[in-house]
Amino acid sequence: MEKNLTTSKKGNLYLIPTLLGDSAPEMVLPAGTIRILQSLDILIVEQVRTARRLLSKIQIPRKIDDIQFFELNKHTLASEIRSFLKPAIEGKSIGLLSEAGTPCVADPGAVVVELAHQTGIKVIPLTGPSSIILALMGSGFNGQSFAFHGYLPIQANEREHAIKSLEKITISTSQTQLFIETPFRNMQLFEALVKHCRPDTMLCIAANLSMPDEFIRSQTIESWRKSQPQIHKIPTVFLIWSQQKRL
Amino acid sequence: MEKNLTTSKKGNLYLIPTLLGDSAPEMVLPAGTIRILQSLDILIVEQVRTARRLLSKIQIPRKIDDIQFFELNKHTLASEIRSFLKPAIEGKSIGLLSEAGTPCVADPGAVVVELAHQTGIKVIPLTGPSSIILALMGSGFNGQSFAFHGYLPIQANEREHAIKSLEKITISTSQTQLFIETPFRNMQLFEALVKHCRPDTMLCIAANLSMPDEFIRSQTIESWRKSQPQIHKIPTVFLIWSQQKRL
Repeated sequence: MEKNLTTSKKGNLYLIPTLLGDSAPEMVLPAGTIRILQSLDILIVEQVRTARRLLSKIQIPRKIDDIQFFELNKHTLASEIRSFLKPAIEGKSIGLLSEAGTPCVADPGAVVVELAHQTGIKVIPLTGPSSIILALMGSGFNGQSFAFHGYLPIQANEREHAIKSLEKITISTSQTQLFIETPFRNMQLFEALVKHCRPDTMLCIAANLSMPDEFIRSQTIESWRKSQPQIHKIPTVFLIWSQQKRL
Repeated sequence: MEKNLTTSKKGNLYLIPTLLGDSAPEMVLPAGTIRILQSLDILIVEQVRTARRLLSKIQIPRKIDDIQFFELNKHTLASEIRSFLKPAIEGKSIGLLSEAGTPCVADPGAVVVELAHQTGIKVIPLTGPSSIILALMGSGFNGQSFAFHGYLPIQANEREHAIKSLEKITISTSQTQLFIETPFRNMQLFEALVKHCRPDTMLCIAANLSMPDEFIRSQTIESWRKSQPQIHKIPTVFLIWSQQKRL
């Protein structure tokens, strides 16, 4: 009985999107998202260095050195991740901040959210830019059914196979297929797409999203064969779609 | 030669997200998105009534009656849609405003964007809330690979078949599967999910996203069989995922 009388109020886990590049925060982050980020003392981040850069851009009302950072990246041990949530169990809210765009989408944050659900910590996703959604909106392709696949294989044979199988899916189901590539390999992926896709398949190239020099173009593979996009080393989302049957 | 000397500057097509429900605009819309919406004289909307409601909420610096609205919904003829873009060809920027969340994602706007690309009108997607992305972030499920399927079939047999085939995909590929339902049928879909899915399949229910009474819970089908969510008539995103292999 004693136990039920002691109410232990846990902190929240806020999922905080960030800029996609060097854009103005007020163009892509709601005032509410900025305000919550400004209020947090504990942040789980991919890299402390880039997190600090964002915090100085949005002008937090305290010293950045007073903020406690936990780094979550491929070097983080699974056992450490559970300890990151301890402050929330003890009543302090925590922020999970992405390196670019929305946390947990094409980034390693999801495991923290999974643990928060298991521990009974309230998870609150906040609004900000998602390159996947911006690309899908801007493409004009089917937004009633779409799939994001992350990175395609690098090895030529496997990549050809992946491209052809995604094209097969969009031809038979009209589902838009989205994928990304490491920016310095963008042109190789582009070359593979124009080589292996059918001339009437639609390809959208969406690069530098939310930046002043944003570039979004949707046209057939046949048209792309005549015009190369300038996307070397530029963050880009690739989308293919068969327009045979729009849903 | 004459023709090349006359520069004809076209207007832009801005893709403008809106609130997911009765939340405060500054919690989910960046100041930049609000400012662009405030500046536009021509809007393509699903329903003039709900567009007016948003415009009075964000306090536009002009009479709402001075804004020209084009309605785009299932009653709109394909031939009309092309004419909506005429002002942009003549140099005036246009906004495409969704009924809820982001335009062109699970809504009819994509055809306007497709025409804009064909006509050489610049398409600029703006940031705002996407229930699909918020649900995915909040689920803790795989965000490296996911697919959104819109509505599942209503008819019991077909729905059972769809659920089982999505479950099969997530078991074999670990891809998160997202879908929605008309809010007054949410509980029927929930019942079908707990009936037809395997006990160890993970189900996330994400309801009233971005509202003060937001509800996001991820647990196994086995656990859901013991606890019903209160989602009757409440906008909800459903996600299933097999946690056998996290990417």
